[in-house]
Amino acid sequence: MTTTFHLAPKIGLDTAAELAAQLRIDSIRSSTAAGSGHPSSSMSAADLLAVLVTRHLRYDWDEPHALGNDHLIFSKGHASPLLYSVFKAVGVVGEDELMTGYRRFGQRLQGHPTPALPWVDVATGSLGQGLPDGVGIALAGKYLDRLSYRVWVLCGDSEVAEGSIWEALDKAAYYGLSNLTAIVDVNRLGQRGPTALGWNLDAYARRAEAFGARVLVIDGHDLAAIDDALTTVEMTVGEQPTVILARTVKGRGFSEVEDSPDWHGKPFPPDMAERAIAELGGIRGLALRGPLPGPMPAPQPASQTATAPRPRYGVGTIVATRKAYGDALIALGARDPRVVVLDAEVGNSTYAADFAHAHPDRFFEMFIAEQQLVAAATGLAVRGYRPFASTFAAFLTRAYDFIRMGAVSGVDVRLVGSHAGVEIGADGPSQMALEDIAMFRAVHGSTVLYPCDATSTVALVDALATRQGISYLRTTRGAYPVLYPDGETFPIGGAKVLRSSDHDDVTLIGAGVTVHGCLQAADVLLEHGIQARVIDCYSVKPIDTVTLTRAATATSGRIVVAEDHHPEGGLCSAVTDALLAAGQSNLSIAHLAVREQPGSGSAAELLSWAGLDADHIVVAARNLVGSRRHLPPVVPEES
Amino acid sequence: MTTTFHLAPKIGLDTAAELAAQLRIDSIRSSTAAGSGHPSSSMSAADLLAVLVTRHLRYDWDEPHALGNDHLIFSKGHASPLLYSVFKAVGVVGEDELMTGYRRFGQRLQGHPTPALPWVDVATGSLGQGLPDGVGIALAGKYLDRLSYRVWVLCGDSEVAEGSIWEALDKAAYYGLSNLTAIVDVNRLGQRGPTALGWNLDAYARRAEAFGARVLVIDGHDLAAIDDALTTVEMTVGEQPTVILARTVKGRGFSEVEDSPDWHGKPFPPDMAERAIAELGGIRGLALRGPLPGPMPAPQPASQTATAPRPRYGVGTIVATRKAYGDALIALGARDPRVVVLDAEVGNSTYAADFAHAHPDRFFEMFIAEQQLVAAATGLAVRGYRPFASTFAAFLTRAYDFIRMGAVSGVDVRLVGSHAGVEIGADGPSQMALEDIAMFRAVHGSTVLYPCDATSTVALVDALATRQGISYLRTTRGAYPVLYPDGETFPIGGAKVLRSSDHDDVTLIGAGVTVHGCLQAADVLLEHGIQARVIDCYSVKPIDTVTLTRAATATSGRIVVAEDHHPEGGLCSAVTDALLAAGQSNLSIAHLAVREQPGSGSAAELLSWAGLDADHIVVAARNLVGSRRHLPPVVPEES
Repeated sequence: MTTTFHLAPKIGLDTAAELAAQLRIDSIRSSTAAGSGHPSSSMSAADLLAVLVTRHLRYDWDEPHALGNDHLIFSKGHASPLLYSVFKAVGVVGEDELMTGYRRFGQRLQGHPTPALPWVDVATGSLGQGLPDGVGIALAGKYLDRLSYRVWVLCGDSEVAEGSIWEALDKAAYYGLSNLTAIVDVNRLGQRGPTALGWNLDAYARRAEAFGARVLVIDGHDLAAIDDALTTVEMTVGEQPTVILARTVKGRGFSEVEDSPDWHGKPFPPDMAERAIAELGGIRGLALRGPLPGPMPAPQPASQTATAPRPRYGVGTIVATRKAYGDALIALGARDPRVVVLDAEVGNSTYAADFAHAHPDRFFEMFIAEQQLVAAATGLAVRGYRPFASTFAAFLTRAYDFIRMGAVSGVDVRLVGSHAGVEIGADGPSQMALEDIAMFRAVHGSTVLYPCDATSTVALVDALATRQGISYLRTTRGAYPVLYPDGETFPIGGAKVLRSSDHDDVTLIGAGVTVHGCLQAADVLLEHGIQARVIDCYSVKPIDTVTLTRAATATSGRIVVAEDHHPEGGLCSAVTDALLAAGQSNLSIAHLAVREQPGSGSAAELLSWAGLDADHIVVAARNLVGSRRHLPPVVPEES
Repeated sequence: MTTTFHLAPKIGLDTAAELAAQLRIDSIRSSTAAGSGHPSSSMSAADLLAVLVTRHLRYDWDEPHALGNDHLIFSKGHASPLLYSVFKAVGVVGEDELMTGYRRFGQRLQGHPTPALPWVDVATGSLGQGLPDGVGIALAGKYLDRLSYRVWVLCGDSEVAEGSIWEALDKAAYYGLSNLTAIVDVNRLGQRGPTALGWNLDAYARRAEAFGARVLVIDGHDLAAIDDALTTVEMTVGEQPTVILARTVKGRGFSEVEDSPDWHGKPFPPDMAERAIAELGGIRGLALRGPLPGPMPAPQPASQTATAPRPRYGVGTIVATRKAYGDALIALGARDPRVVVLDAEVGNSTYAADFAHAHPDRFFEMFIAEQQLVAAATGLAVRGYRPFASTFAAFLTRAYDFIRMGAVSGVDVRLVGSHAGVEIGADGPSQMALEDIAMFRAVHGSTVLYPCDATSTVALVDALATRQGISYLRTTRGAYPVLYPDGETFPIGGAKVLRSSDHDDVTLIGAGVTVHGCLQAADVLLEHGIQARVIDCYSVKPIDTVTLTRAATATSGRIVVAEDHHPEGGLCSAVTDALLAAGQSNLSIAHLAVREQPGSGSAAELLSWAGLDADHIVVAARNLVGSRRHLPPVVPEES
């Protein structure tokens, strides 16, 4: 095997053809060795990748994080054998690693691409996400980095059925992302049979053109045609993203499986693999690399405004946490040029619009497309920016698959949901986030914050700017009193004890809006001779186990948890998980949560209806204390 | 006010114009009275609705569940004042109810449409869902009911940015749903300003045409043009859905707000409302109804195959629960003609394909479009069918907003996720559902089931057929021994005690794949002199609190929970929620879950890596028992 890398002049198409055969063969060998993988889906795209990698992708394989590198995303993540075969051809992955690593747990080469390999930007494999992520990277390139790198995304034809692909093209056209190219491998076959559109490339073309893309239709096995299309992408100046529709044949190069619906996601048995390799001309040992990125201009940081003062609020003033979020963003954005903000057409409700006014060059309107909202944030994070993306908390459920995959990608993305819970009042259940905390807590490595006042909101927004992983901040629609003075600190993973004494009878735990009810309840309880400890559990994940166990011990395990969320997986779950994991026993938990389908009303009406207001907290606490004191339980009063 | 209903001949356009003014006025009056609502978004669509309701919608308002009625869906759910004003005009809602009910909590009229009113099919308000739901209803009409009713969906232009709209049109064209008409109210203004496409109706038209719709572009305030378009819809025979693009003006009819970006979602103050009503010609008292559905042919039930035998499995045979799901569906489908099945292009993996082969007339392939998968199931459920919709469990996260809204709609929809957890092995984390149980548990009124063997899977599929609300069944990729004999019953809300004695030391709780590890662990523990109770917690929600508390009491609170899921919100959460709510104290829980990002490997490797296999359960149990017996803890062995 040669180890000389051909850098210049441009590698010829004859060599690209050799590489294409090698990529097919290595896709077959590695997947057969692994007993897992998608060789036929790799083979259809091998010619596309061979030409792209040798002649058009500008990439310094020794410096995968070089700022000027193009980006290559396999939106069809199941073609990972092809991707890893490319890595072998350019010499960043060895023969042994390809042949054994693909199947071995704990190795860097895994089933679907993840950033465990430094040449992979984002995890894919949940289809229809690579292109949306690429939109985020292209946004960074055009508007923030202002560098000439290109984003090349290999898509499958099956995944074009995902609405997220159309959200991506819509935004790519809206933002004039001529630096983005989707190469669609139209092999007409999905997992279980033909796609809806088959080889009707005209139908795909009409759709992509209608969504604002420049479309090039080619034979995906004609290397000259591929090369012409990629050259066209490079040569043209314009404001349109490009979609290359490549007619291909699944399993191309091995006559036994070509265009067969029966070989999706199946490695070939060894004897078949042997025949395939023979038909493809035998194992090759090409090692070559394509063009390097050009000399890079010094990066131009996004324009920076004068430092905005950090917002301060007087204790007792009435401020909505969503408003504090907007205030915090303006100041944070002034200090940190890497902070960027996105919203899904509700910035005047989430207060992301305040950032947009202060720092218009770092705000991206994603309109009503929450999947693309999260994907764009993911792509921006890949380029080192610090995205905050907001919409109504309820509508982040629309993007759960993208959030989950963001965690797999290991990106640092901050999501902010306003209008949480029944507290929103009039608009009814469709607008009420009642599952969001459960949803975000279940994401690997996530952070979940739910501040109750403006001061803590500002502090937590600041803390999130450098937080790793997927973070979620839940804000509240209505305005409530500021509880904390300026300068108070709010470490992630902490909690605030707002009331305590040496002889507390019961602990009241709230987060967000229910903290205010807990405080009112504590006052009422005191009139009844019951001393309540009140905890503002602003950090739901990680949670402050020390403060919780101390309170549980001090109050003989008597705890009321009030949360504006469905009963499952939210604040109470976080509290009890922590207490049980810490070995706390003898717990008596009264759990107040939204247990029925809400209607429409005022915030106060609905918090009362759901049993989350001060009156209900008082009753729950009295029943807990009474039951330990062997007093008759209190019956909740109708409100 | 007149109370005579004009039934025939067709109401004239002059009367429709009067109605349009009334609908605008009533939208203003009701939202001003409520102090909440979207009058300007209602006013843009008032002419469309006036013509539709008086002259084209075939609907018996006294019999909202009449099978031949057309369906009217407000995909732009925030135009609910308009919808409720229509209800008033046709006499199903009174003046008082409109004026007070819109704002009062607990009244039938609520912020956004929900099926609390019998004329509302599905809850809307999370944008981009009404049209996908309409596709499901139209599928039922064309392929199952075989009735001539039409589905009319009022869409906003902002929501067309949602990818789900394009998934819907794609499927509507694929299935030739000429009974579906989307009327897009293109008023060019979203919540916070202009839409991306504004009044570029050509751009919308190109997109909708490219997706296979017939497109009619009209002035949405020209009653004759509206009438012509709706007549065209009725007159033409074809295989295309129709998209009517109506150029409209937000706030139309009140010059102070017309085409203003500043009046989204804001009721007019009383003085403005007064001026608006005056400009619109004053309050009217029209009461009228449009055409009734024609005489309905006797419903033709879907063709029924010969009864298929209920699948049986010998104890100890090796069967994957996903395979049992397919077996169960075939038999269930033979018994129950209302059972319909959908899949997102992975039916050969979920085994939904087995149903497709047995009952092809009741199977709908949704390709890779999970949002539309759930929406189509929702629409089919509206028509009284019993949908089961499946894909890989991980990809149901893509549809969480639709699942959440399905619960608000009150539909009975069964979702089935295969390939759950690290057990899937080689394909890596993108394909592993590790958040799904948390996600489904948090849905209001949901059912969450996770059987461990084929016998219980079949029984639970049968039970789900008549289950209310959103149900979720989690199946496993790999094949494991059948544990239960044929005939064993598995009530929803139950659990199975697989091992127990009068002197159990510890309880091992599993669900799905971990039940097998618990059984193996119990055998090993017995060799060490530790008696373990083993519980198959196949019903995660509702959960069997009686069996759990009995076990907790019997084993002094020592419980090991093993789940192939992230630690938050899953099985352990369900178990501890139940035990704490039942007042169980002195709990010592060892919680085995997937706490790190998985890679790729074999099922056995990954279950061991995650600490979920028998070895780890043994260690956890011994540590629990030992700590109570004051023995030194056991250190887990490396595997």
